[in-house]
Amino acid sequence: MASVTGPEIERLIQLLARLPGLGPRSARRAALTLIKKREQLMVPLSSALQIACERVVVCSNCGNIDTCDPCTLCSDPRRENTLLVVVEDVADLWALERAGVVNARYHVLGGTLSPLDGVGPEDLTIDRLVARVAEGGVSEVILALNATVDGQTTAHYVTDLLAPTGVKVTKLAHGVPVGGELDYLDEGTLAAAIRSRTPF
Amino acid sequence: MASVTGPEIERLIQLLARLPGLGPRSARRAALTLIKKREQLMVPLSSALQIACERVVVCSNCGNIDTCDPCTLCSDPRRENTLLVVVEDVADLWALERAGVVNARYHVLGGTLSPLDGVGPEDLTIDRLVARVAEGGVSEVILALNATVDGQTTAHYVTDLLAPTGVKVTKLAHGVPVGGELDYLDEGTLAAAIRSRTPF
Ligand SMILES: [Zn+2]
Ligand SMILES: [Zn+2]
Repeated sequence: MASVTGPEIERLIQLLARLPGLGPRSARRAALTLIKKREQLMVPLSSALQIACERVVVCSNCGNIDTCDPCTLCSDPRRENTLLVVVEDVADLWALERAGVVNARYHVLGGTLSPLDGVGPEDLTIDRLVARVAEGGVSEVILALNATVDGQTTAHYVTDLLAPTGVKVTKLAHGVPVGGELDYLDEGTLAAAIRSRTPF
Repeated sequence: MASVTGPEIERLIQLLARLPGLGPRSARRAALTLIKKREQLMVPLSSALQIACERVVVCSNCGNIDTCDPCTLCSDPRRENTLLVVVEDVADLWALERAGVVNARYHVLGGTLSPLDGVGPEDLTIDRLVARVAEGGVSEVILALNATVDGQTTAHYVTDLLAPTGVKVTKLAHGVPVGGELDYLDEGTLAAAIRSRTPF
């Protein structure tokens, strides 16, 4: 291919192919679309990526992704301070916010405990979560973790660590399909799962 | 979403969602992947896009996409000048080059005639194709157009326009794809494969 298109286009295709949802063939199509729609798509995307490279940061408080630290959610005065929703990933936080079912603060763990994959507590923001709760002001921690084995293992681990603080720990109601991931659920299911949260 | 992540990330997601193969959900996943893999993926992709914006051009001779004009293929002294392969799209040119089956020059039409979609001859590079052939030196034009109604309409139109030049015009053979199973082929393909049968 290098002899056909020059190394610059080949490099663009290779990088696009590393995005989730794009394989080598769709990366080529995406590159062609970008080049054909130079002004409407390639230039704006290039600029948006440059801005993201320069400005996007991980919130040092909650682990959300934003262009300010603390993030918009941590700084929002209208949020309920007593309610803390723990999620595995920023995608799950976004899913809950899209559903608009809870007015709370968040804590992004950055994954789940997974001994088989070598992911231990030190790889997640569990210490930071315990510290946030220990600071006081939080009356309930909602564990909004995926209904997977690793998600539930992590829920148990976090619950044990939070026990000394006396905080109420709840989890999403069943209604989250077993083995399902939050990011794939519709708003109604997410709303029902928040409403029917049960003591852990 | 704007209130959750800031407009910069939302803008990135919206632009990614306009790439073929990515919908709104996969665009969000792609954006998160980019942000998480900042140094390994987002910064290099941003840079590759910026380079593409600055350097990628459409070859004024053949319609190929490259970082030089005339393109690498038009400038390649080892290519057969007498053979001109006409394709609809740069993606088709790339497919033929990956297959490495023909040592020729190319001509990219930029689409097919499609009266229903309002695509007429003036929207394609047909004039330029006729001019290239009229300049002399080409002994055969291979129409490597898609076996669709629009592709075949375009093939007929181009063949008529090239008739006065006296150049030999051929088209790709129809038949059973290599590795293809008869059971999955449509009747038109089977009929063509029978008609063009060859001695065993
Ligand atoms: Zn935050
Ligand atoms: Zn060219």
